[in-house]
Amino acid sequence: MSQQTLTGTASTPRVREILAGYAGENPGVLTNLARLLNHGTLAGTGRMVILPVDQGVEHGPARSFGMNAAGYDPDYHFQLAVDAGCNGYAAPLGFLEAGAAKYAGEVPLILKVNNNNSLFSDKNPISVQTSSIHDALRLGCAGIGYTIYPGSAHAGVMYEQLRELTEEAKAVGLAVVVWSYPRGEQISKEGETSMDVIAYAAQIAAQMGAHVIKVKLPSARLEQEAARKVYEAEGIKIDTLADRVRHVVQSAFNGKRIVIFSGGGKAGDAQLFEQIQAIRDGGGFGSIIGRNSFQRPHDDAVAMLHKIMEIYR
Amino acid sequence: MSQQTLTGTASTPRVREILAGYAGENPGVLTNLARLLNHGTLAGTGRMVILPVDQGVEHGPARSFGMNAAGYDPDYHFQLAVDAGCNGYAAPLGFLEAGAAKYAGEVPLILKVNNNNSLFSDKNPISVQTSSIHDALRLGCAGIGYTIYPGSAHAGVMYEQLRELTEEAKAVGLAVVVWSYPRGEQISKEGETSMDVIAYAAQIAAQMGAHVIKVKLPSARLEQEAARKVYEAEGIKIDTLADRVRHVVQSAFNGKRIVIFSGGGKAGDAQLFEQIQAIRDGGGFGSIIGRNSFQRPHDDAVAMLHKIMEIYR
Amino acid sequence: MSQQTLTGTASTPRVREILAGYAGENPGVLTNLARLLNHGTLAGTGRMVILPVDQGVEHGPARSFGMNAAGYDPDYHFQLAVDAGCNGYAAPLGFLEAGAAKYAGEVPLILKVNNNNSLFSDKNPISVQTSSIHDALRLGCAGIGYTIYPGSAHAGVMYEQLRELTEEAKAVGLAVVVWSYPRGEQISKEGETSMDVIAYAAQIAAQMGAHVIKVKLPSARLEQEAARKVYEAEGIKIDTLADRVRHVVQSAFNGKRIVIFSGGGKAGDAQLFEQIQAIRDGGGFGSIIGRNSFQRPHDDAVAMLHKIMEIYR
Amino acid sequence: MSQQTLTGTASTPRVREILAGYAGENPGVLTNLARLLNHGTLAGTGRMVILPVDQGVEHGPARSFGMNAAGYDPDYHFQLAVDAGCNGYAAPLGFLEAGAAKYAGEVPLILKVNNNNSLFSDKNPISVQTSSIHDALRLGCAGIGYTIYPGSAHAGVMYEQLRELTEEAKAVGLAVVVWSYPRGEQISKEGETSMDVIAYAAQIAAQMGAHVIKVKLPSARLEQEAARKVYEAEGIKIDTLADRVRHVVQSAFNGKRIVIFSGGGKAGDAQLFEQIQAIRDGGGFGSIIGRNSFQRPHDDAVAMLHKIMEIYR
Amino acid sequence: MSQQTLTGTASTPRVREILAGYAGENPGVLTNLARLLNHGTLAGTGRMVILPVDQGVEHGPARSFGMNAAGYDPDYHFQLAVDAGCNGYAAPLGFLEAGAAKYAGEVPLILKVNNNNSLFSDKNPISVQTSSIHDALRLGCAGIGYTIYPGSAHAGVMYEQLRELTEEAKAVGLAVVVWSYPRGEQISKEGETSMDVIAYAAQIAAQMGAHVIKVKLPSARLEQEAARKVYEAEGIKIDTLADRVRHVVQSAFNGKRIVIFSGGGKAGDAQLFEQIQAIRDGGGFGSIIGRNSFQRPHDDAVAMLHKIMEIYR
Repeated sequence: MSQQTLTGTASTPRVREILAGYAGENPGVLTNLARLLNHGTLAGTGRMVILPVDQGVEHGPARSFGMNAAGYDPDYHFQLAVDAGCNGYAAPLGFLEAGAAKYAGEVPLILKVNNNNSLFSDKNPISVQTSSIHDALRLGCAGIGYTIYPGSAHAGVMYEQLRELTEEAKAVGLAVVVWSYPRGEQISKEGETSMDVIAYAAQIAAQMGAHVIKVKLPSARLEQEAARKVYEAEGIKIDTLADRVRHVVQSAFNGKRIVIFSGGGKAGDAQLFEQIQAIRDGGGFGSIIGRNSFQRPHDDAVAMLHKIMEIYR
Repeated sequence: MSQQTLTGTASTPRVREILAGYAGENPGVLTNLARLLNHGTLAGTGRMVILPVDQGVEHGPARSFGMNAAGYDPDYHFQLAVDAGCNGYAAPLGFLEAGAAKYAGEVPLILKVNNNNSLFSDKNPISVQTSSIHDALRLGCAGIGYTIYPGSAHAGVMYEQLRELTEEAKAVGLAVVVWSYPRGEQISKEGETSMDVIAYAAQIAAQMGAHVIKVKLPSARLEQEAARKVYEAEGIKIDTLADRVRHVVQSAFNGKRIVIFSGGGKAGDAQLFEQIQAIRDGGGFGSIIGRNSFQRPHDDAVAMLHKIMEIYR
Repeated sequence: MSQQTLTGTASTPRVREILAGYAGENPGVLTNLARLLNHGTLAGTGRMVILPVDQGVEHGPARSFGMNAAGYDPDYHFQLAVDAGCNGYAAPLGFLEAGAAKYAGEVPLILKVNNNNSLFSDKNPISVQTSSIHDALRLGCAGIGYTIYPGSAHAGVMYEQLRELTEEAKAVGLAVVVWSYPRGEQISKEGETSMDVIAYAAQIAAQMGAHVIKVKLPSARLEQEAARKVYEAEGIKIDTLADRVRHVVQSAFNGKRIVIFSGGGKAGDAQLFEQIQAIRDGGGFGSIIGRNSFQRPHDDAVAMLHKIMEIYR
Repeated sequence: MSQQTLTGTASTPRVREILAGYAGENPGVLTNLARLLNHGTLAGTGRMVILPVDQGVEHGPARSFGMNAAGYDPDYHFQLAVDAGCNGYAAPLGFLEAGAAKYAGEVPLILKVNNNNSLFSDKNPISVQTSSIHDALRLGCAGIGYTIYPGSAHAGVMYEQLRELTEEAKAVGLAVVVWSYPRGEQISKEGETSMDVIAYAAQIAAQMGAHVIKVKLPSARLEQEAARKVYEAEGIKIDTLADRVRHVVQSAFNGKRIVIFSGGGKAGDAQLFEQIQAIRDGGGFGSIIGRNSFQRPHDDAVAMLHKIMEIYR
Repeated sequence: MSQQTLTGTASTPRVREILAGYAGENPGVLTNLARLLNHGTLAGTGRMVILPVDQGVEHGPARSFGMNAAGYDPDYHFQLAVDAGCNGYAAPLGFLEAGAAKYAGEVPLILKVNNNNSLFSDKNPISVQTSSIHDALRLGCAGIGYTIYPGSAHAGVMYEQLRELTEEAKAVGLAVVVWSYPRGEQISKEGETSMDVIAYAAQIAAQMGAHVIKVKLPSARLEQEAARKVYEAEGIKIDTLADRVRHVVQSAFNGKRIVIFSGGGKAGDAQLFEQIQAIRDGGGFGSIIGRNSFQRPHDDAVAMLHKIMEIYR
C-alpha cells in the first residue's frame, strides 16, 4: 500500500509564490515550510493534507482509538501518513518518539508541543506545554504545533508561551503551526465556529507570527455585535462555505499565511468532500484531518484521503 | 504615488533640542529617536505622524479592514506609510514580519510588543506580551511599543513587564513608545479621557521611562475629586483643546518627552483637522492615526495624512 | 537469604523486543532500561517487580513503618530489594542517599523526584519536586520517578515540570518512570480507578514521553459519559481484570511502553496473587509493590515477592 | 533543464538498511541522513552524488571559476545541484547564505563549517572554523561538513573542534560529514593517497563519530612500513581500484558508515566513469564531485552527473 | 556648510536589486544595509562613499592628524561625513563614543570592532578585537567593521573571531563590513595588491558571510603561479583598472555582494578621480576614503568628496 520512493528537486511556481509571503524568515524556516509543501501526493500544488493525532491526550485512548484499535499503536499513524501521501504528521511527544526513528525521513513531522486533556475541563481552557523546541530538533521535525484558545480567560498564558516558543523555533529554522480554537466564558458554543470569531482567531494566530494556521470551518453565524454591524454594512460575503473560507484566508494576511481547516464532524464522506471542495474553491490551503482518518480502517482512510487529495489537486 | 528617495544628513535645531531632553540615554536610543524624527514628510520639524495598525488583533479583522479590504494585506500598510511619508509604522509581530524584508529601510518600524483582543474583555484589562526585544532587532525596528492600562487592577503586571522590556530595549538602543490608556473598575467611561486622568496617564508613562508617549485627546472633564480641587484652586487652564494638549505635554516632563495623540473618532475630517491644529497649537508632538487612515481608500488616506502634515509643518 | 550473584550478558529476545519499542532514544536510556529489565529474579523475562518506598513522605512514618519497625531504617529497603531479587528500588532523595553508597551496584535505583505529603491535602493535589536529575546521576540511579495527577486543577504545573525533567533525563540517558494517578475535583473517588480513567492516565503518561508507566489496577467501572458510549459501542472487553490490564497496556502505545501496576490493597495474599496472574495474563509488565512488601516482616515479604516473581516468570 | 517536482514517502529497504547502521543516533540525525539518501536522481538507491563547492575559498576565485565564469554566481551551484538531481550541495557560509532562501527545500544543504585557503600554506595544514551549528540550522541544512588533516602536526586542534561540533550537531539532529585528508610533514605526497593512509583516514573519521566520510580514491601504494607488513602478511586484496574501495569501506566500520569518494583529477571522463564503476563495484556509497562538475559548462556538467548516476543506479 | 535635512521613503529599484542579493538575511540586516544605501548624496544610487577614520590607532595620531589638526577632534569627522553627504562613517570605539550622541541620526555609523597598531609589527599581522556587538547597538550603529589579513600565519584567529562576531551581528540585524587586506610571510609586498590576491581576498570575505567588502584597488600583477596559469589560459581580462574592478566584483559573488575600494594613495586628485571612474565603469559599489579625506582642509575634503559622488551618481 506504501508509495514508491520518489524525489523532489525544484519547487513549483506556486510553492515559490507561497514562500515569498514568508520573505524575512530565515532559510531554515523556508526550507521546513518547503519540506511540508513539497512532500506527498500534493507536493508542489500549494495544498496540504496533514494527519494530526493528538486525540489520545485530548479525549483519552478509547474515545480516540476504540473504533479502529490499530490506532493504539504509534507506528500505525506514521504508516497511515506515508501510505496516504500526507504532507505531514502532527502528534505529541510520545507518539513521535515512538516512531520517528523507524520512519525517519518518510513524512515531515510536526511536534505538538502543548496539550490539553478531558480529565479536567474549564470554560476557560488552557493547554500546557508538554515538549520543547529541542525535542523537535532531536526528533527531526519540520515544525512545532501549538494550540491557543483565544477568548479563554487564560489565553494570555498561552500567548506568552507561544511567543517564546515561536521566537526559539524561528531562530533554529522550525516552522510554527498554530491551532487557533476560540473558547471561553464570553463565547457561546455556536460562537466558537461563528464566521467573525473564526476569522478573528485566524488573524490572532497570524499576528502572533504563525506560519501555518489551523482553524475550524466557520458557520454563517456572527457572534459579536460589533462585528455583525461591519459584516452587514460592508456586505462581506459569507453565504457559502467557499465564501467563508475565502474570508478566513483573507483574514490571515490576505493569503500570505497558510490556512488549513480541520476535518469536520462525522456527517459522512459526501458532506466531507463537499467541504473540501469549498475549501479548495475558497482558496484554502488544505486540511488537517485526524479522527476522520484514523478512526476508520486503514484502507478506507487511505482511499478517503486520496479522494480528498484528488479534489485539492 | 510613492515619494522620491531623498536623504537626510544633519538634524535641524528643533530635532537637536528635542533630543537634548533625552541626554543620558545612549546614542543608540538617540539615533532611533532621530530615525523617527528625521523621516518622512515631517522630517526635521520635530513633529511626527505615525501609522499604527494593531486593530486586527484588538478588534478583529472585519472590524478593522472590512471597510477597506486592501488592509487585510500586510503590504498595504507599509506602502501606505511610505506613500504618506509617515515618520513610522507600528504593528504587531505578524504584520511586521510579513513586510519588513520587502520594505526594508523605507519607513522606521515600531514593534508593538503587547496586545489585547476582544474575544475576552474585563473591566480591568490586561495586554499580554506577544513579541520581544530580539524580534525588534531582527526586524530592524527603531523602537518598541507597549500598552499600559493605568487604573486596571492588573496594571502592575504590565508595569513590571514594561520595566523589564524598557531596560532591555534601552541597553540595545531601541526607543520605547508607550500607549497609555487609563482603564479600570475605578475609572468611569468618561473618566478614561478626562483631563486629569489623561495627564496622569502621560505622567506615569514618562516616569516609567517612555521615550514617546501616546495618549488620547482629553476632554475638559475632571474625574478625580482630589485632582479637581487643585485644577480649580490653581486655575489650570483647560478650556480649549489646545490648552488641554498643552497641559498634557507639560505633564510629560514639561515638553521633554515626545507626546503624540491618537487620531480621534469618525467625526469627519473637518473636526479631525481642527484637532490637529489644537495639538499643534498646544505644543503636541504629533499624531498616531490608525483607523482614520487605513479604513478609507488609499488615495484618500494619503491626501488626509498630507493635509495633517501640512498643518503640523 | 540473599540470592546468588549472577551476571547478565546478552539480552533475551524478549528484552530486545521491548527495547525496540524505544528505538530513537539514546543508548544511555536503552542501557538503563536494560539494567532494570536484566536485573534480579525476573532478569530477561521482560517482567519487573519494583520496590517503591515513598510512603514515609506520602503518609508519615508511623503509618508507613509502624507495623514493621525495621522499615524506619533506610538500609532495610535496599536489603529487602536485594534479598527479594527485585528489578529496582524506588525512593525519595533521603532514603536513596542513606543507602546508595553501601549498596552500590546491588540493585538499580529509581530516584522519586517529586513527592506529596498528608499535612496538607487538596481535592486538586499537586506533588512537588524534591530532587533533581543531577541527584539521580550522583546516586548512580537507572532512572527517575515522577508522579502526575491527571485531572487535578494543578496538573499543568506537574506536566510542565515533568516535561523539563524528562528532556533533561533523556539527554543524560536516564529512564523516566511516571506514576500516573488520576485525581481532582471533577473525578469521583471511584473514578480514580475506573477503567476509562486509568487507561486515559496511562495514555497521558505515554504521550508525555514516559518510558515506564505505573498505574493502579482498574475496576470495570466507567467514569466519563463520553467514554462509556465508545466502550459500549465498540464492545471493548473489560470484564475480567486480565481484560482490563490488556486494555491499559493497549492504551500505552499497544505494548510499546512498559506498564506496571501498583500492588493493590490489603485484602490478603490470595487476592494479591490473583491480581498478579491477571496482570500476567493481560500482558502487563509487572508490579510495583510497596506497602504490601515492607509493612510485613522481612522473610514474609521476601517469600511473597518470590511467589509473585514465580507467577510472572 | 530543471527536474519535475516529485515527492518521497516510504524509504527503500536499502535506505533502511543503511540507517540501521546509525541506530542509537536520534531521529533527527536519521531524518537528515534520510533527506540526503532520499533526494535527487539516486534517491532510495543507497548511493549519493554530492556537489561540493568550497574551492573559491580553498584555491581562490579565478582558479575555481575562471574556466566556467557562471560559477562566480552563488545561484549557479544551487541550480546545478537541482538540475543534476544531486543528493546534496555542500559549500561554505557565504555561498549557502546567498542562495538558501531562493532555493529553499530544493536540495539538501551541507554547511562546510571549516575552511583553508592558499594564501598561506604549511606542510602541516590546518582548517579553521568559519561557521557554526546555529548557522546550519538557520540555513535549513541537513548537515555540516568538516575537514580534518590526519597527519598534520595541528590535527589535534581540528580533532578537538570537530569533537565539539559533532556533539552539538548530533544533539540538534544534524548529520556530520567529514572530509578526511591525510597531510603533514611525516606523510609523503604519494602517501596522502596511499592505500593504508586513506584507509586509516577513513577509520579516524569513523571513530570520531562522522556519519558520512569523504576520502580520496586510494592508490595501490603503501606508505607506512608497519602497515605494509600486515597488508602483505594477510594478503589484503588491493590490486584493483574496486578492491581498494572495498577495503576503505571495510575500514569505515565494515560498511556501516557512508563513505564517498572525491571526484578525481582532470584525466578525462572515460577515466572518471571507470572510477565510478570501481566505486560502485567496491561497495562505495557514491561521489562528491566539485571541480569536475562546476568547471565545465552547465549542460555538460548535468550530462556527466547523470551519466555517473546511471552507473550508480 | 551642512546639508539641509531631507527624508527618504521608498527605496529605488537599484537598491531593491542590491538588497535582493541578501535574501535570507533578516529584515534587520536588510534595514541597516538600506540605511547605508539610502543615506547621503548617493542615496538610492546603489553606490556608496564611506568615511573611515581608524588611522589614529593604525598609524598613531601625528601621522594621521598632524597635517590637518582639526582631525584630532572626534567631532570633526562626524561633521565631515555629514557635510560631505557620506553614506556612512566608520571608526573605532573611542571616536564613535565621543560623537555618537551629538550627531545621533545624522550619518550611519560602522563600528570598527578590531584594530591593529604600529607599535608592534609582524610580517604576519593580526588585528585584535577592541569593541563588541553590544557596543555597536548602544551606539546606534548600522553595522560593524572587521579587518582580516588573509595570508597571515595568524589569519585563523581573525577568521574564527569574525565568524563569531558575524553570527552575533546578523542575529541582531547589524550589517557586517569586512576590510580584507592580504598580508603575510608568503605574500610579496606587490602581491598584496596583485589582481589574483585581491580577488581572492574579496572571495574569502564573501564566503565568510560579509555583507560589504572593502579591498584595495588591484594592480595588473599576478602573484600566485597557479592563479597566473588560469588567468592566462582563460584570458581573464585585467588590462584596465575598470577590468580589474569588474573581476573583483565578479569574485565577490558576481555582483551580489557590495564591494567598495579604498581611496588610493596620495598621487593627486586627478589620478584619484580616474580611479573613481574606473570603479564606476567596472561596476564597483563605491569608495571608502579616509586619509585622502581627513588629511586635507575641511572644505577641500568636502569638495573632493562631492566630486567623487558626482562621478558615481
